[in-house]
Amino acid sequence: MRFHVMTLFPSIFDAYLNESMMKKAIENKKISVDIYNIRDFSKNKHKKVDDYPFGGGAGMVMTPQPIYDTYDHIVKKNNLKNPKVVYLTPKGKVFNQTIANSLSKEEDIILLCGHYEGIDQRIIDLIVTDEISIGDYVLTGGELPALILIDCISRLIPGVLGKEESFMEESFKDNLLEYPQYTRPREFMGMKVPDVLLSGNHKLIDEWRKNKSIQITSERRPDLMKKVIKNDKNK
Amino acid sequence: MRFHVMTLFPSIFDAYLNESMMKKAIENKKISVDIYNIRDFSKNKHKKVDDYPFGGGAGMVMTPQPIYDTYDHIVKKNNLKNPKVVYLTPKGKVFNQTIANSLSKEEDIILLCGHYEGIDQRIIDLIVTDEISIGDYVLTGGELPALILIDCISRLIPGVLGKEESFMEESFKDNLLEYPQYTRPREFMGMKVPDVLLSGNHKLIDEWRKNKSIQITSERRPDLMKKVIKNDKNK
Repeated sequence: MRFHVMTLFPSIFDAYLNESMMKKAIENKKISVDIYNIRDFSKNKHKKVDDYPFGGGAGMVMTPQPIYDTYDHIVKKNNLKNPKVVYLTPKGKVFNQTIANSLSKEEDIILLCGHYEGIDQRIIDLIVTDEISIGDYVLTGGELPALILIDCISRLIPGVLGKEESFMEESFKDNLLEYPQYTRPREFMGMKVPDVLLSGNHKLIDEWRKNKSIQITSERRPDLMKKVIKNDKNK
Repeated sequence: MRFHVMTLFPSIFDAYLNESMMKKAIENKKISVDIYNIRDFSKNKHKKVDDYPFGGGAGMVMTPQPIYDTYDHIVKKNNLKNPKVVYLTPKGKVFNQTIANSLSKEEDIILLCGHYEGIDQRIIDLIVTDEISIGDYVLTGGELPALILIDCISRLIPGVLGKEESFMEESFKDNLLEYPQYTRPREFMGMKVPDVLLSGNHKLIDEWRKNKSIQITSERRPDLMKKVIKNDKNK
């Protein structure tokens, strides 16, 4: 199993990968973990990797270019065909042992760690195959969740164990998962920011986002949606 | 907020606490995180911290003494009165934002990171006030979950975020949570290992463990218990 991690904070990974089980698994070539700093791939002259969200709102959104170029580098360098690309996000399917077992059958997994208020929706549409959440709580970034997946999945690789042995600030607000985020550029690889977010009409933007949130929550987390409906009835 | 962490792998924490939000929060004295190596408190001449489980079974169980002495040291050094002691375990209540909010009101939180097949049940009975799981998956130890809690709770402390940012191997087997584990010594601070585990009768031990598992699962995770009942009906 080869893990390829895209992150803005590479040093977070080093300490964990040097400990006990992980270190041994890497030394014994049962797994490999390569860390890529998304910032290194930014074409901005100040190596910027984020920007304000279209349509307004607090926080910054990670721009698609540095992430796409990091992904492209990983895919070409390792000659990958249709690799699993896991984006760690509170919007994702809730991680469990079944998902871990399934992922442990892959030869390569690319893990994408978000930060700030999230990443541009288009990069998700472009490269992400799986969105995974590790639980219903808000974290600073995807680095700890990525380590959770690496740890959990590695234990399932034959020979790793001995014989004996989202961050988005607004996620879960009102029990709704967050709407998609967009930032500059307006067009990227032919994909455009939804017009409504460029309209300047805040009522429309709020409605669009609310609708997106309801749609996403209904589709992915019916358990949360039940709470939303119950709360609405009590109002 | 002061976090006090008991662990066998202190270096895992250093890298994360030196990054971005955490580093700033510590420098600004919004939070403090003190790490204690449980092994330093072992009275065993080889600094041993684990032993085989009574009643048989794979893996090692952490012995109570080094953990208790670490706890005692933390409490006395910081003059703590009835502190929250959180044990990270898949048996615990599933962590979520509500629990994080509640914990963020505490002045001190002691986090206990287990390893191997778990820790002696008596140390849980003695010092642990809260058992918390970060999700339905098996990890190598409690270190990443402890970091998840520190990250998640710290974000809720006023002043930490800027204005603009707004184990057990057998757990979940057959949808049942793991039974309590015990190891040497047979008696610790007046508390004894259940006789059945010293009986050598593996049928009885299996039954006892199965019963404990069902009892714990029924009490703590009715959602899992429903699956157990459903599976039994289909057999």
